[in-house]
Amino acid sequence: MTAPVLLTPGPLTTSARTRQAMLVDWGSWDERFNQLTASVCEQLLAIIDGADSHHCITLQGSGTFAVEAAIGTLVPRDGKVLVLINGAYGKRLAKICDVLGRAVSTFETAEDQPTTATDVDRLLRADPRISHVALIHCETSTGILNPLAAIAEVVKRHGKRLIIDAMSAFGALPIDARAVPFDALIAASGKCLEGVPGMGFVFADKQALAAAQGNCHSLALDLFDQHAYMAKTGQWRFTPPTHVVAALHEALVQYAEEGGLPARHQRYARNCQALLDGMADLGLRSFLPAAIQAPIIVTFHAPHDPRYQFKDFYERVKAKGFILYPGKLTEVDTFRVGCIGHVDTPQMRAAVTAIGDALRAMGITPSSIGSPA
Amino acid sequence: MTAPVLLTPGPLTTSARTRQAMLVDWGSWDERFNQLTASVCEQLLAIIDGADSHHCITLQGSGTFAVEAAIGTLVPRDGKVLVLINGAYGKRLAKICDVLGRAVSTFETAEDQPTTATDVDRLLRADPRISHVALIHCETSTGILNPLAAIAEVVKRHGKRLIIDAMSAFGALPIDARAVPFDALIAASGKCLEGVPGMGFVFADKQALAAAQGNCHSLALDLFDQHAYMAKTGQWRFTPPTHVVAALHEALVQYAEEGGLPARHQRYARNCQALLDGMADLGLRSFLPAAIQAPIIVTFHAPHDPRYQFKDFYERVKAKGFILYPGKLTEVDTFRVGCIGHVDTPQMRAAVTAIGDALRAMGITPSSIGSPA
Repeated sequence: MTAPVLLTPGPLTTSARTRQAMLVDWGSWDERFNQLTASVCEQLLAIIDGADSHHCITLQGSGTFAVEAAIGTLVPRDGKVLVLINGAYGKRLAKICDVLGRAVSTFETAEDQPTTATDVDRLLRADPRISHVALIHCETSTGILNPLAAIAEVVKRHGKRLIIDAMSAFGALPIDARAVPFDALIAASGKCLEGVPGMGFVFADKQALAAAQGNCHSLALDLFDQHAYMAKTGQWRFTPPTHVVAALHEALVQYAEEGGLPARHQRYARNCQALLDGMADLGLRSFLPAAIQAPIIVTFHAPHDPRYQFKDFYERVKAKGFILYPGKLTEVDTFRVGCIGHVDTPQMRAAVTAIGDALRAMGITPSSIGSPA
Repeated sequence: MTAPVLLTPGPLTTSARTRQAMLVDWGSWDERFNQLTASVCEQLLAIIDGADSHHCITLQGSGTFAVEAAIGTLVPRDGKVLVLINGAYGKRLAKICDVLGRAVSTFETAEDQPTTATDVDRLLRADPRISHVALIHCETSTGILNPLAAIAEVVKRHGKRLIIDAMSAFGALPIDARAVPFDALIAASGKCLEGVPGMGFVFADKQALAAAQGNCHSLALDLFDQHAYMAKTGQWRFTPPTHVVAALHEALVQYAEEGGLPARHQRYARNCQALLDGMADLGLRSFLPAAIQAPIIVTFHAPHDPRYQFKDFYERVKAKGFILYPGKLTEVDTFRVGCIGHVDTPQMRAAVTAIGDALRAMGITPSSIGSPA
């Protein structure tokens, strides 16, 4: 049986080459593995043109581990974080601050409303205690894109520090460290770089990191220590996920071969457009307007038809070779389809065909999909 | 080029079948992946006969992440931990308590001296504030085995709670949850179970875990939340290292096929004996007496010869297909050779031959190895 294509926000479908890179066992102490890690960090820094300004610190675990590590390490214990929220991942940022005992205030907009730089300017004027602003670049709950560059500029003008959870879009949407000032940008192996899940990484501003010794609430998640050990020895501080690192290295080689960020962005944009066009033909409406829709994951309104049940729909589409993702909105019934991973337009069109077939088999037709709105 | 055999305490050499299990991408939300995780937990609990008394909680990251998670979740903020130390991993346990702000006292013996139950009895009598005792089952710094069952009995008699870092020997040395009382036992995927590195797991006493809500200093490392989410949804709370989980599942199938713990233990014991015998023939002395030498990793005195340099020696043995491990003792010049992983006696003998050849090429012979002791 062929494995289904994952149209999810990660773990996603990887290339055979990337997976085959895991067929070798690496000694974590060995020089060849050290070189692999160093090469990964170098390639990651090149994506943001950050080698002069930032360190790349790799961390074991899921992306959330790296987000917690960045906040715990870079926000001093007497700092205060303004968290910008328009979905589940923004809420998670605020929860992390809470658990870590960092003072936090939140600003929440509707799930289809990006935070604006004007909002941030007003909030920073109102509360001079705020030391850091934290936001999600592309909020996977809906697929919404927040205006990072404009917000970063306002944060800098106020002399505050920025922490960016760029998990879902890193490598596909451009961020230039020479133009966008930030203390930390966090992403992971198993998203748009098309590696496998199991490690995150944080780009940490060199000066901010140098001042962060002793901040962290955790031994395992202390990025100051993690970086210091790597800088001294070339090795990970604790056992690295060797096969995951090897897969990411191989995925980055293919990323460069494809043409780097512009090519990856274009492929995902084509995937997204093919998806939107095909789904519109089926009568399925996307949740977000095009202007704030990132080409990463698309939220669709569930068919307004009593014959529709997500679980049934999911299984039928899966039987045709595609794994969809459930919705994450509380007020609106939705489902999501990812545009990322080792997939191209023909597969997106095939996924739309599978979705159409599944709906028809459930007795749901474009005319019956309707909409209560 | 064939990859060298890793004679290290993990990451180690895995079977081709285990690595090939990583050639499939899994959706982390999909039912088939949930079944994979559930099966892994069930098989792990069976190893300790712990299904009635303990939950198995899987965690992303290296083993140290799981150790920190266990301490942070299961030791209340006003608890006090007695840490038993005879090597680097015991010291790390104490450091974790320190960073987490848990009161800690340490008892340190020499690196070739197991802690005794008598020591623990005396220490618990002397300080009634101690709520938890934490120890390393097999301390990888040397390969020393601590008398777990006797210590567990004393801890229980005092009404205190036990936390066992069983990382390096879990799956090879028996621990029966019905006979050895403990609140937490921690291990990881990439050790004696012969999976790949990237996840740990904690067997947590059901009652102790039920009382642990809100203890944890961390969101990512909170085992109460991790377990509650898995129990409710069948899914990992944050993105799982899907390929690492699939590899561990496949490794556990092979573990059962081999004959489970007794067979794994016997194979490693044979490996260890072949190593000790062969190295003795070369004139190389092991650091520990046989009675406290676990069949996991063996520390050898470095040849007392001015021509010996570890780096040179390591590269020569590596060129012959075997990766050794440096020593971790501060006072004595040593190197280490692991007995674990997907290797059998013939490979251990071949490793000894490679070591002998490397030493001879360096001009070091049994008669010149000598010993200052």
